[in-house]
Amino acid sequence: MSMDTELVFRSAREQLALLERKELSARELLDAHVAQITRHNPTVNAVVTVDLDTAERVATAIDDERCAGRPLGPLAGLPISIKDTHATAGLRTTCGSPLLADNVPDADDEIVRRMQVGGVVRLGKTNVPEFAAGSHTFNPVFGVTRNPYAPTRSAGGSSGGAAAALAAGFQPIADGSDMGGSLRNPASFCNVVGLRPTPGLVPDPTGLLGYLPMGTAGPMARTVGDVGLLLSVIAGRHRADPLSYDSDAAAYAAPTPASLAGMRVAWAPTLGDRVPVEADVLDTLAPNVAVFEDLGAHVEPACPDLDGAFEAFRTLRAVEFEAAFAQMYAATPDGFKPDLVWNISEGARLSGPQVGRALAELTRLQRAADRFFDDYDVLLAPVSQVTPFDAELTWPSMVAGVEQHDYLGWMESCCLITALGVPAMSVPGGFTTDGLPVGLQIITRARTEATLLAVAAAFEEATAFGLRTPDLEGINR
Amino acid sequence: MSMDTELVFRSAREQLALLERKELSARELLDAHVAQITRHNPTVNAVVTVDLDTAERVATAIDDERCAGRPLGPLAGLPISIKDTHATAGLRTTCGSPLLADNVPDADDEIVRRMQVGGVVRLGKTNVPEFAAGSHTFNPVFGVTRNPYAPTRSAGGSSGGAAAALAAGFQPIADGSDMGGSLRNPASFCNVVGLRPTPGLVPDPTGLLGYLPMGTAGPMARTVGDVGLLLSVIAGRHRADPLSYDSDAAAYAAPTPASLAGMRVAWAPTLGDRVPVEADVLDTLAPNVAVFEDLGAHVEPACPDLDGAFEAFRTLRAVEFEAAFAQMYAATPDGFKPDLVWNISEGARLSGPQVGRALAELTRLQRAADRFFDDYDVLLAPVSQVTPFDAELTWPSMVAGVEQHDYLGWMESCCLITALGVPAMSVPGGFTTDGLPVGLQIITRARTEATLLAVAAAFEEATAFGLRTPDLEGINR
Repeated sequence: MSMDTELVFRSAREQLALLERKELSARELLDAHVAQITRHNPTVNAVVTVDLDTAERVATAIDDERCAGRPLGPLAGLPISIKDTHATAGLRTTCGSPLLADNVPDADDEIVRRMQVGGVVRLGKTNVPEFAAGSHTFNPVFGVTRNPYAPTRSAGGSSGGAAAALAAGFQPIADGSDMGGSLRNPASFCNVVGLRPTPGLVPDPTGLLGYLPMGTAGPMARTVGDVGLLLSVIAGRHRADPLSYDSDAAAYAAPTPASLAGMRVAWAPTLGDRVPVEADVLDTLAPNVAVFEDLGAHVEPACPDLDGAFEAFRTLRAVEFEAAFAQMYAATPDGFKPDLVWNISEGARLSGPQVGRALAELTRLQRAADRFFDDYDVLLAPVSQVTPFDAELTWPSMVAGVEQHDYLGWMESCCLITALGVPAMSVPGGFTTDGLPVGLQIITRARTEATLLAVAAAFEEATAFGLRTPDLEGINR
Repeated sequence: MSMDTELVFRSAREQLALLERKELSARELLDAHVAQITRHNPTVNAVVTVDLDTAERVATAIDDERCAGRPLGPLAGLPISIKDTHATAGLRTTCGSPLLADNVPDADDEIVRRMQVGGVVRLGKTNVPEFAAGSHTFNPVFGVTRNPYAPTRSAGGSSGGAAAALAAGFQPIADGSDMGGSLRNPASFCNVVGLRPTPGLVPDPTGLLGYLPMGTAGPMARTVGDVGLLLSVIAGRHRADPLSYDSDAAAYAAPTPASLAGMRVAWAPTLGDRVPVEADVLDTLAPNVAVFEDLGAHVEPACPDLDGAFEAFRTLRAVEFEAAFAQMYAATPDGFKPDLVWNISEGARLSGPQVGRALAELTRLQRAADRFFDDYDVLLAPVSQVTPFDAELTWPSMVAGVEQHDYLGWMESCCLITALGVPAMSVPGGFTTDGLPVGLQIITRARTEATLLAVAAAFEEATAFGLRTPDLEGINR
């Protein structure tokens, strides 16, 4: 591994320390990442739009500020490409849709604005599925994103470009978003860390349906500590998001590993026999869940009430898709992939009382989850029911021998947790015998991200799976 | 006015001071209120269930605690009857429905629990419309509640028993709830103060549809300061209400009148020509709105964007009614009044996309309202479009010459503000030439109840309309 290669696989925190000690300039850090992208993005296809001129100008300006001794943001100098569903002012934002192939927004989305206030150097955009629908990243504008650990396989999605970019050393932190696993599945597939926060913690002041706790933005990185650092920059109330709330962001910035001694841990390998899970996934996770016991936790099989959770999730997801896309679909029916058409049509078929029942179910389930966390400090589950699958598939139609009837089927293990309104993190949980990454889903009570980070940090410290970087040189050979 | 009569018309704060100085016992305070109820409730019909034994025991216990020097809650010793839609453990809670005429809950609703922790002496229940539907208080279980200022007239609703009880000196503070004006219309009709808080400030951990910001509990009293005091006891996050949030409750407890000098005040007498308002209401309010100018505020005609607000409100209200009552209605179709049947049926007819559009409209309108409050500190509007109407009517079918087609029509001035997600208070705003009370609706930005209380306190101090108590003796003559 060259010195530059070693640099781009260091944590954000380590890169920041080098910058702060002036052992490295932001411009040099940018150059190292650009070299890595130039070398390996043709294989991975994670970064799909680049604005190098702006990035170089911003990096140089940050170096000038630092030399002049001016105060800088907590992320000052970190290069980052932004999820292509998040609007970037002056930089093409396609959402992976041919309908938006030439879309250049006037304004940044709030998460982008906050990261830029924090000092990131915006380099480009990361790939997504068409309108972020589905947990495998391919679209007619930019093609498929490949898994840096196995380029014939999926990188997951919808924050698939972000996860692959992290795994490939293209950037140290990444923004993502998650309705049914879009921060978690790609993190699981790419051996990085992705956190779906409690809805409202990372506010969305431009979301269409402000009161529905479905999609939320969130942080990704290669380490738990870096996820916490990014979360501390993007969390906190915005008046235009009615679910958002004040939070002690500083509590996230530098998580210390929790003591797991005496902690009550629930382990739900099949989420209460609700989802089929591939043997490879379970075989990989089981010995690593035992790490919690080794560290003194009481681990026992348990699962919160999830009756009706998938149905409530699917109903409210369909409401969102219909509200967001029905008009556009009527105008340009050929501009959408079949899975999107199906999901929009599902929404159009719903009755009002069905929506009311889904909202009631969500409320009931979230109260039950809150009571569950009176008895358990932490819930563990698989992130994905499958290992990274063939990148040429649109979605796996069989999971552990069970036929799946639509593109949401294989994502159920994440969708169920979404319905509970709780924070959920995908942490590197080991590798299959074939060398494919498997994520462990760590879940805590709503609005307890600080606890979640501390627990995840303890697991990360004990296992160190995240340190195994992909053999990109081998791939290129 | 006898000494006891004078006592029951004192503010909660004054009654508490007498208790704290031991110039009065909680038992004596209870007795004075019971005497007032015994004398005047037959006319007003505000208090519909009484548990005198428990009240006497609790009052005596509080007196004992005080004598022993033990710490007491901020409301310790104040007698109160509870809104009959709020569950009271061991005390009949009918919701004004014949279906629940014998319903005795096992547990208190959260607002009741918090008030009891605060030290209130629970005496009974206040009357409501059937399932709180509509803003005029009558039901087949207990009959109609009458306006203490004019017993042939409505006391408003759905917290009509509460407002009438306050106006008649039956209790110094009251709990209520408000979806489409249920804390505001009765306050307006009965010359008391009612605050609809920002949804989530007063949490509802048992509400059916936790994410819909429609109905919310809130405080009522005869003075702004007492409303703030009660709010400080009932506000604050509960984990089982996903819209609830932490708040600085102490900031509400003792509001000081704000300086209105330089304040930017918007006055919307017809909410942007959207609602018909009776001339009596406008004629009464206009000179009193001028009080804001006298105190140095800049008052100008202005109204936030309310396009589609009534439609969004009606849609989401219908979703709530269908979700809450459809099953019960199917089982006992004769158990509901026609207006309820209509509202449940409206909900049953809705399509999913209609609900999605209403949620999107609500989000859009609330963002527009937030921007409106960049330009104005306060919005003023009438509370009710009509003066207290004939108590024998179910609802006014004509408002200022405009025909109303359903029971929600005359409540639009409150419903529109509900859609904005902002706190709104009804403050005594003067009397018509016929001596009927008229409320002024004071509205501020979401989650700024402390500001709202301070502004309302300044208006109250300058006008003192709330000090004019009803001539109950004259009524009984």
